[in-house]
Amino acid sequence: MTADLPTIRLRPKSKPQAIRHGFPWVFADELVTDRRTRSIAPGSFALLEDAERRPLGLVTVNPESKIIARIMDPDPQAQVDRDWIAARLRRALALRERLFDAPFYRLVHAEADGLPGTIIDRFGDAAVIQPNAAWAERMAGDIADALQAVTGVSAVILNGQGRARGLEGLPERMELLAGGLSGPVEVPMNGAVYLADLMGGQKTGLFYDQRPNHAFAQRLAKGARVLDVFSHVGGFGLAALAAGAVHATCVDGSAAALELAQGGARAMGAESRLAIRQGDAFAQMEALAAEGARFDLVICDPPAFAPSKPALEAGLRAYERVAKLAAPLVAPGGYLALCSCSHAADLAAFRNASARGIGRGGRRMQLLHTGQAGPDHPTLPQLAETGYLKALFFRLDG
Amino acid sequence: MTADLPTIRLRPKSKPQAIRHGFPWVFADELVTDRRTRSIAPGSFALLEDAERRPLGLVTVNPESKIIARIMDPDPQAQVDRDWIAARLRRALALRERLFDAPFYRLVHAEADGLPGTIIDRFGDAAVIQPNAAWAERMAGDIADALQAVTGVSAVILNGQGRARGLEGLPERMELLAGGLSGPVEVPMNGAVYLADLMGGQKTGLFYDQRPNHAFAQRLAKGARVLDVFSHVGGFGLAALAAGAVHATCVDGSAAALELAQGGARAMGAESRLAIRQGDAFAQMEALAAEGARFDLVICDPPAFAPSKPALEAGLRAYERVAKLAAPLVAPGGYLALCSCSHAADLAAFRNASARGIGRGGRRMQLLHTGQAGPDHPTLPQLAETGYLKALFFRLDG
Repeated sequence: MTADLPTIRLRPKSKPQAIRHGFPWVFADELVTDRRTRSIAPGSFALLEDAERRPLGLVTVNPESKIIARIMDPDPQAQVDRDWIAARLRRALALRERLFDAPFYRLVHAEADGLPGTIIDRFGDAAVIQPNAAWAERMAGDIADALQAVTGVSAVILNGQGRARGLEGLPERMELLAGGLSGPVEVPMNGAVYLADLMGGQKTGLFYDQRPNHAFAQRLAKGARVLDVFSHVGGFGLAALAAGAVHATCVDGSAAALELAQGGARAMGAESRLAIRQGDAFAQMEALAAEGARFDLVICDPPAFAPSKPALEAGLRAYERVAKLAAPLVAPGGYLALCSCSHAADLAAFRNASARGIGRGGRRMQLLHTGQAGPDHPTLPQLAETGYLKALFFRLDG
Repeated sequence: MTADLPTIRLRPKSKPQAIRHGFPWVFADELVTDRRTRSIAPGSFALLEDAERRPLGLVTVNPESKIIARIMDPDPQAQVDRDWIAARLRRALALRERLFDAPFYRLVHAEADGLPGTIIDRFGDAAVIQPNAAWAERMAGDIADALQAVTGVSAVILNGQGRARGLEGLPERMELLAGGLSGPVEVPMNGAVYLADLMGGQKTGLFYDQRPNHAFAQRLAKGARVLDVFSHVGGFGLAALAAGAVHATCVDGSAAALELAQGGARAMGAESRLAIRQGDAFAQMEALAAEGARFDLVICDPPAFAPSKPALEAGLRAYERVAKLAAPLVAPGGYLALCSCSHAADLAAFRNASARGIGRGGRRMQLLHTGQAGPDHPTLPQLAETGYLKALFFRLDG
């Protein structure tokens, strides 16, 4: 196979050491991009060499992406087939089986799990693949087969939505690759029950990355009145109810998401303790303030306000505004959790915006805990920016 | 009282807004330091004004410290006495009682808990005060009285050791302020039992800050062979044994610390699963490698190699060396946790040094989790540098 693959080569000034030490990407401007390279079909494989023609490994090439090549295997002789994929999946599965008691987790977190650009979430007997790189789109059938063989899942969904695919020139699509689904899946997590609509929801229907932050919120939730703003399917709200909150109010713009939150509460026997408010989160927070509502624990987990560098300033202003509107809703001595899933807003910038907003909301604060995505979302230390999720837990003045 | 207090004033170019928004310190070069200010007795109180003579609050002054004033209370009329201290302690206690089932925690974490420069650790019926600011040294008796009244502890120890006191011009001392102690205290944490020697140990005899990181290590420890390097009294090693590790080896330079680790294991009924190796940690890691020893989980929690900016470069080299020596001791697919409690080494610098060391140790890696100090170590968002503790959990290649 190797003999048939095209060869691509780094420019003289680029740094092959980084790749030898595990950096997984080659950017377009690091490569000698002659006509032959530009004509490689997106998602096909090639051999990468340094400027002195020493092999660096097997890569997948996408001339339509800024990340023109992704390392598949440091071994240039590797054959990326169903067996190769299955080996990576077994390694990923071994970690999750050590970390979790039940088969509900992110099984593959892209580069860090050795499957570049590929996300796989597992929901018991079902799994959702997000092929966010061209090779994974092309080999989605092999990935699905390997996934069934390694994990035993019966239903496999391809979720081809989201911003990452656009950057790779991939179209939007949603497809059932194997098995069948009858309605939302019940997902047990932190003692709560969530309903995940795997074919219809945002992303893959549930955000596993917040699991440790839900768990931290639970330590603050016993006997508390809880407000979960931007609740989606009730991530923090249902976790709080499972931990003994007296009641939780979920606010979200999506009626469908709130309906799933109610369904989860019903499955937990907690529907009498859940209230929902549908509408714009900012307007709802203003309305709650006008009503004089106070909560012992408020969580705001908005969508990415700063998904990219150009959106950073406006995004930070939006985070500050969330904090400023939320702070007055927190009872004296109560708790406020503020989350950001924006790649472009680093921790310090987000923390500053949050602290400024809380201050402008008239409150003083302690920072108790800074949460991140759970360990089923591993990263490569070389890609620090993949640490996108930040959850700040504040205690406000009494 | 207020009328009798001296007044100190910010220079025209300094920023009173930061203090109004909760920044707790005034540096010497921000203050109009006339002879009168320089003659204020260390640890006494004063009124702070901005350059336009508007009040900023009640402060404690120490002309011998770079931090010449610390905000005690934004209210200039406040009286810092036993009642004032008790109110701060009650607020600190309420947080810990929400977070923990048993009275073993850091009760007061200095500025963030409203008691500047003051650390209080609680060990059941005993508590250890570290007065690292002159006011707390001066009022240690009042703090001890308030502490007994609010928490009901019987024994109160003043631990006047450590680097922070030197910066404040305070002498080293160790004193029993109230009650009595008969030998080390048993401390239950994460299902393990630790022995804390409150009068003789490093710092306050036990490091509560690592509690969540011990807990994360426990998720990787079941059935594992564990190596705990720089183990002190067995923090990670005993936690791993409590979580079902088949055996743990604790390495430390201190025979006294290792003896306490053995005592803890005995209290857990786990002494047959604990091995100790006393000596230089670097030499011990080299010896283990020469013996061909392999572990499923290795933790290295060294003392602060980069306690201050001038020590940063040498410190990062030491962290890299720890990683390089530890990586070959990790079995294929095993886990490596690397910790730093250095203020001067920020997360990115420590992560880079660690990843470089692991790479030079011949291994590839995923980063699973970045741990920090537990929530009984709150910070002020304005003092990001107080986020000193970092624990990186890696999984190494198979």
